[in-house]
Amino acid sequence: GPSNSEGAGKVSLLKKVPALKDGDFTLAECTAILLYLSRKYNTPDHWYPSDIQKRARVDEYLSWHHANIRANAPKTMWIKVLIPLFTGQPLPSEKLQEVMEGLSTSLKQFEERFLQDKAFIIGSEISLADLVAIVELMQPVGVGCDIFEDRPRLREWRRRVEDAVGKELFFQAHEMILNIKELSNIQIDPQLKEQLAPVLMKMLK
Amino acid sequence: GPSNSEGAGKVSLLKKVPALKDGDFTLAECTAILLYLSRKYNTPDHWYPSDIQKRARVDEYLSWHHANIRANAPKTMWIKVLIPLFTGQPLPSEKLQEVMEGLSTSLKQFEERFLQDKAFIIGSEISLADLVAIVELMQPVGVGCDIFEDRPRLREWRRRVEDAVGKELFFQAHEMILNIKELSNIQIDPQLKEQLAPVLMKMLK
Repeated sequence: GPSNSEGAGKVSLLKKVPALKDGDFTLAECTAILLYLSRKYNTPDHWYPSDIQKRARVDEYLSWHHANIRANAPKTMWIKVLIPLFTGQPLPSEKLQEVMEGLSTSLKQFEERFLQDKAFIIGSEISLADLVAIVELMQPVGVGCDIFEDRPRLREWRRRVEDAVGKELFFQAHEMILNIKELSNIQIDPQLKEQLAPVLMKMLK
Repeated sequence: GPSNSEGAGKVSLLKKVPALKDGDFTLAECTAILLYLSRKYNTPDHWYPSDIQKRARVDEYLSWHHANIRANAPKTMWIKVLIPLFTGQPLPSEKLQEVMEGLSTSLKQFEERFLQDKAFIIGSEISLADLVAIVELMQPVGVGCDIFEDRPRLREWRRRVEDAVGKELFFQAHEMILNIKELSNIQIDPQLKEQLAPVLMKMLK
């Protein structure tokens, strides 16, 4: 995520805000929120199995996810849409290629190490690990990098995730990401542009 | 971590291996292993509290940790010891400065957002979050970047963690990291050096 760059902390637009508020209790971080909700509402066991080995598989994926899928997939969106929006110019294509190569390596590991020949990451049932993964992997799709196209195993997994959560809910949840290109049409205050451009460029490092 | 670089996957020396084996069950990823052990051995509640809001605070920290502390702190070791060992030459000091700046931003967030005026990350008791943090933060210390020196709040937290786990166990656990500079004296096969140097350089990006 962008939160570890010097400038990002100074710019309130990019600052991470608490994303869940439950009474006086506020909580940030997507995975922490999903885990909290699954406990609070006592969701069906398959999301975060009580079996300690299956549960450890979810934790193992969530931990790996951060430095791999999450570190790579959202960068496609920054490069193709968000940074050009603020800097006013497209980024050199090498940048995108570099990110796509990193993502490709992570996807290979995702398929070989985590998915293997199973229906879902931890086995025959969908879990929080699949949700966390799919949300990040739809981001390249939204900016025109269809990572599922040439990866039948990954495509079949996505289809199973869609079926498990229901197609309607699936597309509703990804609506903003899938339409992110529309952001290109909004007008940005020139002063904000000037402030943000160097910060955004730094994020790509 | 280095696992998201193209080259790293090809080099068995750097490949992540399962770090826990429990019968037929193997598990990687430090945080997943700690969580598994805490469940399997039913450790005292404070490590991963059953109170769902305290537990969510541990999860929140663990999630943030990956893209911040874990993304920055170990790089100091790579720059000061491991990469020079394989390339045979020190890295430009700008590289270290860049990493130290990123780490400094993360430490500021660590103090202001997570530690605040509490004894430990989630409050008055030590948890898995503190363990995961301290292990990573001792790495810069081992290569001569004492990040605790000018940070009284961080230093006091470290002292409390040392007391909570016991000084002897604390230094035993960090012995290898604190003596990592001794690695500089070992001989590396020239062919391995040649293979690894470009891979290691790529990791710094």
